Amino acid sequence: MSELTVYGNILSQPTRSVLTFCRLSGLEFNHQDVDFMKKEHLADEFTKINPFQAMPAIVHNSFNVWESVACVMYLADVYNVDNQWYPKDPKTRARINSYLLWHDEGVRSPLVNYLRAKYLVPRFGGPELTEETEAPYRAKLQEWCNTFKWQLAETHYAGRTSTPTIADIFAYNEVASAVALMNLDEQPEIKRWYDEIGAIPAVQEYTQQASEIRRKVFG
Amino acid sequence: MSELTVYGNILSQPTRSVLTFCRLSGLEFNHQDVDFMKKEHLADEFTKINPFQAMPAIVHNSFNVWESVACVMYLADVYNVDNQWYPKDPKTRARINSYLLWHDEGVRSPLVNYLRAKYLVPRFGGPELTEETEAPYRAKLQEWCNTFKWQLAETHYAGRTSTPTIADIFAYNEVASAVALMNLDEQPEIKRWYDEIGAIPAVQEYTQQASEIRRKVFG
Repeated sequence: MSELTVYGNILSQPTRSVLTFCRLSGLEFNHQDVDFMKKEHLADEFTKINPFQAMPAIVHNSFNVWESVACVMYLADVYNVDNQWYPKDPKTRARINSYLLWHDEGVRSPLVNYLRAKYLVPRFGGPELTEETEAPYRAKLQEWCNTFKWQLAETHYAGRTSTPTIADIFAYNEVASAVALMNLDEQPEIKRWYDEIGAIPAVQEYTQQASEIRRKVFG
Repeated sequence: MSELTVYGNILSQPTRSVLTFCRLSGLEFNHQDVDFMKKEHLADEFTKINPFQAMPAIVHNSFNVWESVACVMYLADVYNVDNQWYPKDPKTRARINSYLLWHDEGVRSPLVNYLRAKYLVPRFGGPELTEETEAPYRAKLQEWCNTFKWQLAETHYAGRTSTPTIADIFAYNEVASAVALMNLDEQPEIKRWYDEIGAIPAVQEYTQQASEIRRKVFG
């Protein structure tokens, strides 16, 4: 059995990002599914690994780490990772980290909050969005879109680096889950980036797995 | 002139955290004030350093980095920092990073949003909080308080480490700016931590500078 286990569900975007990082860096690992439909993320077993009860978390030789970006940083440290996805060069890493530290507030929150309000809340008996209640979500999406475009403008990648990196993987997984909210044909710069990152084999594979699960769970 | 300049205002909590990290790590640096009352953070000069127009940002040998935590990580890389505040030991660093990746959403946002609504908005002509409009802010504050208490419970420090680290510095600066919102005497575990971190000379000095500026600016 491998010394590294990644806990999380494929429908969780940050879980896919950590799994993809492991794959792209050639790490040996087990993936342990955490089925949120069965509330496994709230059960004692997972709460011991991450008391915040949020996915993903990792266990490496009995040492547990939570927060997806902190997981990547820890794995980079202990496996001495220095590849195109998270190079050791301090300037490149700084650009990637500046993106990763902004990612939750700047990318994940606007996309996930909109997704929840538009699809999940009505599905579980809450109110459907109206034109008026949807407007602030659309404004946040537009804000993300404008910011992301200038970030891509410099080098064509999210971390303003010369190749795709883990910054693009984190960004891609959020956009891929929220793509129904936007018309990417109207955003050619983002579309070109989206298609390029989505064609990376490990990314493609996890994205397809997520689509299949989503179809099964939500129809 | 030093090769490192930290840009930001002492009233900005993350600016104080980056400045304190530089002091505690013995780095030579210049501090360039960015006066937000004069809207210097929106001016071209600062926008070139951080297009997000947020403080702090650093320039190190013509290379600019934004996002306070990314600044600390970059400085740790280029100055080869391995001290109690940000040790290289991967497990200790992972615990610190897990905190730092949660800090913005878990600590800074609830405290800063409450501060703005209670003091800044009314000061600039907006509505005073009522019992009803204040309730959600108090609930978020309580949530922070409960989470922070279990984080401190393990080792008495925010990063669940055996000594104070940069995680405590980031946390302290947010709590110090928001201390008027809470009665720390009712939270003895937090109070004990707060007093200990606040007594670190560099922390104490920047906190006092901030109090003096706050008195001058806001009376």
